[in-house]
Formats: sequence, structure tokens, C-alpha cells
Amino acid sequence: MTESWATFGADLHLDLSAGRGLRAGLTEALREAARSGRLAAGTRLPSSRSLAADLGIARNTVAEAYAELVAEGWLTARQGSGTRVAERARPRKPAAAARVRHPARRGASYSLVPGSPDLGGFPRAAWLSAARRALTDAPNEAFGYSADGRGRPELREALTGYLARARGVYADPDRIVLCSGFVHALGLLARVLRARRVREMAVEGYCLDIHRNLLARAGLRTRPLGVDAEGARTGELTGAVGAVLLTPAHQFPTGAALTPARRAAVVDWARTTGGLVLEDDYDGEFRYDRQPVGALQGLDPDRVVYLGTASKSLAPGLRMGWMVVPPGLLDEVLAVKGMSDWTSSALDQLTLAEFITSGAYDRHVRGMRLRYRRRRDELVAALAGRVAVSGIAAGLHAVLDLPAGTERSVVQSAAWQDLAVEGLSAFRHPGADLPPRDALVVGYGTPSDSAWTPTLGALSAALP
Amino acid sequence: MTESWATFGADLHLDLSAGRGLRAGLTEALREAARSGRLAAGTRLPSSRSLAADLGIARNTVAEAYAELVAEGWLTARQGSGTRVAERARPRKPAAAARVRHPARRGASYSLVPGSPDLGGFPRAAWLSAARRALTDAPNEAFGYSADGRGRPELREALTGYLARARGVYADPDRIVLCSGFVHALGLLARVLRARRVREMAVEGYCLDIHRNLLARAGLRTRPLGVDAEGARTGELTGAVGAVLLTPAHQFPTGAALTPARRAAVVDWARTTGGLVLEDDYDGEFRYDRQPVGALQGLDPDRVVYLGTASKSLAPGLRMGWMVVPPGLLDEVLAVKGMSDWTSSALDQLTLAEFITSGAYDRHVRGMRLRYRRRRDELVAALAGRVAVSGIAAGLHAVLDLPAGTERSVVQSAAWQDLAVEGLSAFRHPGADLPPRDALVVGYGTPSDSAWTPTLGALSAALP
Repeated sequence: MTESWATFGADLHLDLSAGRGLRAGLTEALREAARSGRLAAGTRLPSSRSLAADLGIARNTVAEAYAELVAEGWLTARQGSGTRVAERARPRKPAAAARVRHPARRGASYSLVPGSPDLGGFPRAAWLSAARRALTDAPNEAFGYSADGRGRPELREALTGYLARARGVYADPDRIVLCSGFVHALGLLARVLRARRVREMAVEGYCLDIHRNLLARAGLRTRPLGVDAEGARTGELTGAVGAVLLTPAHQFPTGAALTPARRAAVVDWARTTGGLVLEDDYDGEFRYDRQPVGALQGLDPDRVVYLGTASKSLAPGLRMGWMVVPPGLLDEVLAVKGMSDWTSSALDQLTLAEFITSGAYDRHVRGMRLRYRRRRDELVAALAGRVAVSGIAAGLHAVLDLPAGTERSVVQSAAWQDLAVEGLSAFRHPGADLPPRDALVVGYGTPSDSAWTPTLGALSAALP
Repeated sequence: MTESWATFGADLHLDLSAGRGLRAGLTEALREAARSGRLAAGTRLPSSRSLAADLGIARNTVAEAYAELVAEGWLTARQGSGTRVAERARPRKPAAAARVRHPARRGASYSLVPGSPDLGGFPRAAWLSAARRALTDAPNEAFGYSADGRGRPELREALTGYLARARGVYADPDRIVLCSGFVHALGLLARVLRARRVREMAVEGYCLDIHRNLLARAGLRTRPLGVDAEGARTGELTGAVGAVLLTPAHQFPTGAALTPARRAAVVDWARTTGGLVLEDDYDGEFRYDRQPVGALQGLDPDRVVYLGTASKSLAPGLRMGWMVVPPGLLDEVLAVKGMSDWTSSALDQLTLAEFITSGAYDRHVRGMRLRYRRRRDELVAALAGRVAVSGIAAGLHAVLDLPAGTERSVVQSAAWQDLAVEGLSAFRHPGADLPPRDALVVGYGTPSDSAWTPTLGALSAALP
């Protein structure tokens, strides 16, 4: 008789061949599991007492099986670290291991590619303290399936206060929808627009290709607006487009702040045509000079969707973003998001809420602002008289204008200095009617503090 | 002259009317911010020293403005807690507050609705310890944008070992794709199937409507298989369907384990037709009796996608799931997931990896298994002789058969006992050719430990 057991309390899945005595069967099953890789090298086995209890057999039987496999070299036993699968018991490789086409973006030692904060600045200790308080205070239901597509009320409440005082946003916890980052939010809004039969929307002539491509995949054509020193040329908006995606506080990547006249123009366009404004406030926390940069949303909360993120202020790895949605759009956004689109961890949401309400968020932003401002000043000083630096009133990046026709060779020259950097042309919408401009987009927030000085040196060496 | 300043280092966005003296302008701007709700009640203001430094004005000017607003009742100042916006300064409500259509699922005091673990069992202290270790050890790049659509390698490595020993899954870190729960994974696979021009797939005749609806929204027709005491009738599979979604370890909700013959049948079908098997192993960790329940995936890792989740073993609120993808399918899954579909927090992924490798996951599952097994035994004992209880070898729920035609009235009678419970008919595919069956699906994992005894009492009182 052959009997197959598979349910050991220790979460071992073994086929025990009965009919040969328990000890032999157990030994062989464990050996086979180690050989085949079902038990990976280094795996700690349950204690003999515990496995014996689960199997309903004598502890000695398990101890003897373990001893035999230790003797054979399949297992190792060490005082204090228990019995483990030996390192030489390698798992068998699956057939035809797939090649994966997602390598890291850049292989260079130094990087000034924009879009990332200094990851070394993540406030690990403060975040952990907030997590401890959040986890201790969390109601049990927070660990369950969410009944609210908007996300945890604690974080929506905390963001309402924060966005009002820091960004001049007219928010309400009921109209905040938490997302796993800006891209998730933009994807949801693209689906809402398509459901409203919008076919075309305006974007800035310089913008991030990942955003353009997302809109295209959702079935939306993008029409580029001109971009100059006053930001996007919102006067070019017409009734042909149903929405516009803007970065009013700090145009990405040119760095201009949208002027009051152009802010008024976009609001007028929205009121006249019924169009929707998507305000990407990706780095609104980081401002270094006195100038008006309140959120556009405050001008017309009924027509502007405000989109914020923790990706620049804290870390992209948190996958945390938020929308403040006009009252008339909320039901559509939630319908598209659906009851099953719970994308970010409730524990992280509670931790961020605690991080904000305790004041740790403000402290962190203030500290990082000083760090980035110092870098910006050093960048400007290092390049004084060599290239024009613009877009520096805010954010984590600057634009360095280059002699006409040299952008490509400077990017290449940077690569020779082991420095990854991007030219402005990488951000140009293919359909944009923009004057030629050779420039580098320099993300001075990207390096860690220790890498900053050599990175700046590499940049200086690469410039003409 | 009117000047507008908006960038205070303290993350205040205020419009200062100049031309009347700094102190008067600052006072009025702060007052207006409190009145309008831009500064929420309870908000702590920056210290006068810090705000003065940010504004480049004398500290006294700020201190006097604060004092004036305290005197007017807009602010409060208390030793040790700084200056805050007074509670009576209420924010103005946004126009036309939207009604939200996502109420909590059930309003009853007791719930046996299946699908949730005991949320009171979440291992808060152990999770926090793992988070501390993970956060301390994390490389800086973990906080950045992920360069790998599969998710953190640490967690894929940990899952490979765990799934091999606990579920008999042939995994490889390269072929594991981390998701924010089962539904996210199923949505990705539905898009892969549609891209392969699959139009129809098979599901179990009893299944979760949320899964059926997701497939339908993705453009896939679902054809129901019969379900009986041996699980889904996989012999009914034909070449007309391109894929099948199964719960082999513990059919949801009837609780049957797919028999060896039917496992063989589904693998034969996949090999003959080139169809894909999606194995939903939602509660594979929880088994109470000795019987073979290894993952189907082990039979043919090239044709079965294994789908697992932490939603039953830990908590749905974590939004953490995983797929083990056949080599030939990986590129398609990653293409659909895209470089921008980073849905779960890298910190949570690192924490779960640490939780698994430290042995805390096994300890937690073992503890919960004892808890659920005790409940199951109490449920069976309490109902002995009254109704037939089935599907109890595993999982967090059982099926209670009722006299023909009584299901609806028993669910109603339970509601009178303040108990939420679902009838089996709620899980029936509308197109399924199944014999009539009146039953309750009882999620005995759902109540907290303290609520368990009264919940069982309410159930007992509701039964005929």
C-alpha cells in the first residue's frame, strides 16, 4: 500500500511512501525534497519535536531521520541555528529560464538623470517610528479588504490639512482618492476620460514620455502645447481637446512656473469648454525662492484634478500618490477604480498619515529642501560663466543650455565620464512645434550625499 | 502695490498683501488661511523663529502676529505644544459634497461572510520587527523607482523557498511576479489572454462573482464547469476555451479538493489544446487533515500559472500577492504589467521577505492554523446532527447544507440574529448547469477571537 501525506504542520509538502516503516519513508521524502529543490538550501527545518507532533509519530523517529540526512550531507545541524538544508543541495533549475527584458535604466557610476529624490535621504528611523505608532493604533478592520475605494480615511484626513496649508489646495477627505503613485492616478483618469468619449487631450510640449505613452495606450491622442519661459502656452488650448495635463508649479523638465496670466487662461478654457485640468504637482514641496507657486487647483476646484505624490518628497518605492477630485468627477473615478483596485497597503497609508500628523513629514521636507538648495547653489556656482542654468527656483532638477548642436555629444561625453545624464530632446513631444534647444536636464536630487561632489565633477568635465 | 508671497519654508501658502506693513499683512494672511480652512483646525504652526527666518523678517514681527491671532481666538498657544490653529476655526466645506457609493459590505454585528482571515490575528509585533530589520538593511536603491517589473528580488527569493517546501511549487525567483493581491494578478493575466486573442475561458460553476466580473470587463466570456464532491469537472474542458481558472486545493466555496484524476485531466487538456491553467491557491496554507493537497502547478510548471496571496495567511490590507509564471509566458506578463505598474511598496515587499526568511511567517501560519482548526471543530460539534457540514479539511470556511428551498429564509433569519452570512447561491455562475443546492457558506475565519462564541451562537439560533 502506498500512502501519500502532504499536510505537515510545519508547512512541508512531502510524499511519504508508506509500507517501509515511517523512519525510512520520512528520510527518503526529506532527501528527495532537498535534492529536487523543493526544500531550498539553507531552509530551516522544524524541530524534531514539532514535526513529530504534527505527524503524530515518535519524536525519535524524526530525530533519527534528521541524523541520517545530516550524515549523508543533505542537512546540517548546528547548535543554536537548528537543522537546515545543506548548501550543496542545490535546487534543480527550471527548463528554459526566461530572459527578462527589464534591466536597470542606467549602468553608469554617477547619475544626474532627473525624476528621483536622493534615496539616501529617506528618513528610515522616523518612518519606522511612525509605522510603530500606526500599527499599534490601527483598528483591526484596517487589515481587511477595504470597503472604500478612496483608501484609508486617516490618510485622507491628514492630506487634507497638509495640502491646504502647504499647497493652497481646497481639499476634503471625501474627495481625496489614494493611489499607488502618480502613474496609477493618471491611468485611472485616462479611463474616466475615455468613458466620457474624450479622444484627444493636451500635454506640454516638453514632458515625460512615460506619461504620453500611458495616455496613448489608454486610447487618448496627445496634442502638445508650446512651452517657454512662462510655462506651457495655455492660450493654445481649444475645444478640440477634452483635458490638459500640466505641471504648473514647476514645468517638467524646463522648470518654468506657469504665470498668473496663463493660469487664468487655462481656467477660462476649462470653464468655457467644460474641459478638465489635470495638475501634476510632482515636486511642489521643494521651492527655494519667494514667488507664487500655490496649486492651480485653488483657482477652480470644480475643474482641476490635483495630483500629488510622495515619490519626490519621500521615496518612489513607497508607491503612494493622491488625487483631489472635483465633486462632479468622484463617482466616475471610483467607478473606474472599482471595488477591487486596492493597490496600496493599508499599513503604509496609516504610516504616512501618522508621519504627516506628527510633523515628521514637514521636518523631512524642510531638511531635504536645505540639502537640495545647497546642491543647487553649488551647481550654479560650479558652472557659472560656462553654461546658462535655468529652472532652478524649485524642484530637484535644472536645465543647462548648451551651444546649438552639441547636446548629443555632451551626453556622450558625460557617458565617458561614467555619468548618466539626459538631454532635453528626450522629453520633447514628437509633434511639438518648439524652437530647437540643446540642453541637459540635470537631476541634482538624484545622487546620494556622498556621491554629489564627484558627480558634479564629472558633469563639469563633460561640459564643453 | 500688492505683492504676493507664497513660499514659506514652513510649507505655508499665504498671500501677503504688502503696502500695509509686514505685521498686518502676515496677520491677515494667517487669519484668512485659518478662516478658509487652508490651515485646518489643530494644525501646528512653525515656530516664530523658523517662520521669520524663512520670510527674512524679524522674529518679533511673527511673534506679534501670532500673539494677535491668539488674542482673536484664531490660534492657541500652549507651553510645549507650540502655536496651533484653534479648534473653532472650522474649514469651509466644499460645494456639493459628493455622495460616495461604497459603503461597508455588511452592517451586522456578527459576520461569517467568507473570504477574510481573523484580522485580530495579524501579528503586529512580529511584522514590526521584520519591518525594522528590513528597513535597516534595505539598500538605498530599494526606495527608488523599480527597474524590474517583477518586484524586489529579496521577496521573490524568499517566496521561491517557501512555495517549494510549503506548497510543492516549482518556482524560481526569475519567474515570480509580485502583485498587489490576487485580483491584480488575475487582471494582468486576463489582459495577456486577450492579447493572445483568447475570447472565452472556463471557470468553476461556483466561484467568486468579483473574479467573473473582472474577466468579463477584460473582454473574456466565462464558461462554467460543473462542481461536485471531487471539485471542478475538468473533464468538461474543451478546445473552445483558452484558459481555466481553478481552486484545486480547496474549491471556493464548496471546499472540495480536486481529485488526482481530475488534476490529470486538466493537465492533459492544457497539453492537448495549448490552454493555460490559472491556479488560485488562496488558502493553501490552512490544512487540517492529512491528504495530498500540493499545488497543481508542480504537475506542469510550463502550463500552470500559480497564484498565491498573503490576504488569507496574513491580511488583505497588505495588498500582497504573487504569481509563478511559466517561462514561455513571462515576457507577455511583464509587457502587460509594464514598467510603470509598480503597485506595491518596496518596503512592504522587503518586510514580507524578512518575515518569511526569519521563520515568522511559518510561526504565524502555524498559530493561525491551530486557531482556525479549533473553530472548525467547535463549528462541527455545535451543529452535529442538525446540518451536514462539508468542505472542512482545509481553509477558513465550511458549507452547511440546508433543507431544499430554505437557503433564503435562513440567510434572512441570520440577519434577524444580527449575523451576516451568505448563501451558496450567491456564488453560482449564472450559466452553470448545477443541481439545486441550498446551503450556507460559513467563513469561520472571519470573526475575531472574542466575537467567535457569540457568532457561533447566532448561527446556531438562525438554523432551522
